[in-house]
Amino acid sequence: MSEFIKKPLNKVVRGSKRAQYDKELIYSILDSHFICHVPYLFEGTAIVIPTAYGRKEDSILIHGSLKNRMMLSLLEQETVSLNVTHLDGIVLARSIFHHSVNYRSVNVFGKARVISDDWEKMEALKIITDSVIANRWEEARIPNQKELDSTLVMAIDIEDASAKVREVEAADEVADQGLDIWAGVLELNVQPGRLVTNSDCKEGIPEPQSALNFKFSNNSVKQP
Amino acid sequence: MSEFIKKPLNKVVRGSKRAQYDKELIYSILDSHFICHVPYLFEGTAIVIPTAYGRKEDSILIHGSLKNRMMLSLLEQETVSLNVTHLDGIVLARSIFHHSVNYRSVNVFGKARVISDDWEKMEALKIITDSVIANRWEEARIPNQKELDSTLVMAIDIEDASAKVREVEAADEVADQGLDIWAGVLELNVQPGRLVTNSDCKEGIPEPQSALNFKFSNNSVKQP
Repeated sequence: MSEFIKKPLNKVVRGSKRAQYDKELIYSILDSHFICHVPYLFEGTAIVIPTAYGRKEDSILIHGSLKNRMMLSLLEQETVSLNVTHLDGIVLARSIFHHSVNYRSVNVFGKARVISDDWEKMEALKIITDSVIANRWEEARIPNQKELDSTLVMAIDIEDASAKVREVEAADEVADQGLDIWAGVLELNVQPGRLVTNSDCKEGIPEPQSALNFKFSNNSVKQP
Repeated sequence: MSEFIKKPLNKVVRGSKRAQYDKELIYSILDSHFICHVPYLFEGTAIVIPTAYGRKEDSILIHGSLKNRMMLSLLEQETVSLNVTHLDGIVLARSIFHHSVNYRSVNVFGKARVISDDWEKMEALKIITDSVIANRWEEARIPNQKELDSTLVMAIDIEDASAKVREVEAADEVADQGLDIWAGVLELNVQPGRLVTNSDCKEGIPEPQSALNFKFSNNSVKQP
């Protein structure tokens, strides 16, 4: 399957010309971020919590404490969803009305299940860690049995998904194009900043390659 | 009121030592971002949509099309919530188990109402625009009556809120502190990138001050 099928749940209603269902695009957006926003229901109110994730094939992997209220509530839901958003730029049109943002956003729908097998859990934790910062797993001390036992790992098996992408310049009304107002896009990038060594770090330990090589996937304006 | 009262809905359950209810802190986190994640219910499934916002006093202002499914559904909900998250860094501990991210995250709870008065709508659109990019409102063509009539503007009156903040260095088990593994934080910053002029922009129009002055509020590691 190379496209997700449009169903009521994943069909993009507003701004549907920006909607995409291509699996490769959706997975590339998922794979270039590591924080998702997951909604869960608490006493009838939907609450959103950000959490780190990784992807293995057609599943999103998340983890938390054994008592994580958000995660436990996902198990009780018929369908779980989550959102991943890259904020790529601010679109400055001539009219306020056509101001917008450039972004790559994915909504995923599926069912949540606990991963309880130790080997699978360890693999999932490696995938999540590598999703946050590639190759860190090899540098750090991996989880011991006690840590593994106190971690809740969950897969959300992707059943439906959709992407919404805006990556073009400003689009004004024809009548406004003659105005003496600048139009364009201010791109926004996530950049690694300072690498701050812990105050209790042993002296003489070099900065890790994982951090030195870290790069976040930003997107540029596609010009016509 | 300088603190929100801890209630079942806004009480932070996991990692409660990072929880904060101070109004000034919560509002400073809200005021230094402009994209929130709003969950809504569609046929029993909670779905999250990112959207731009601004704050006026104790209300979050959002806008969209008159047919915006997410916004219309908020009006039917007893309590609406939304999340704002700054991703400030990656915490590299010696153990994988204590890896984390630094962040400033706020959850807001309240009731949604439509703003229908034209003057209030215009003010709300100005507040949202200025929240995305300060002073752009003065540079661009403001909405005309037709545009105003086709825009749905909504206030979410904040009744409860909580913040969760992690802004410190890595915290390892004492037994791991002697390991020859680097520990620290890789800070992440949102930075303005290229300012890309529209292909149809009139020649000779200077780049706008709003974009040249744009600055995103990033947070640094607080060292002990």
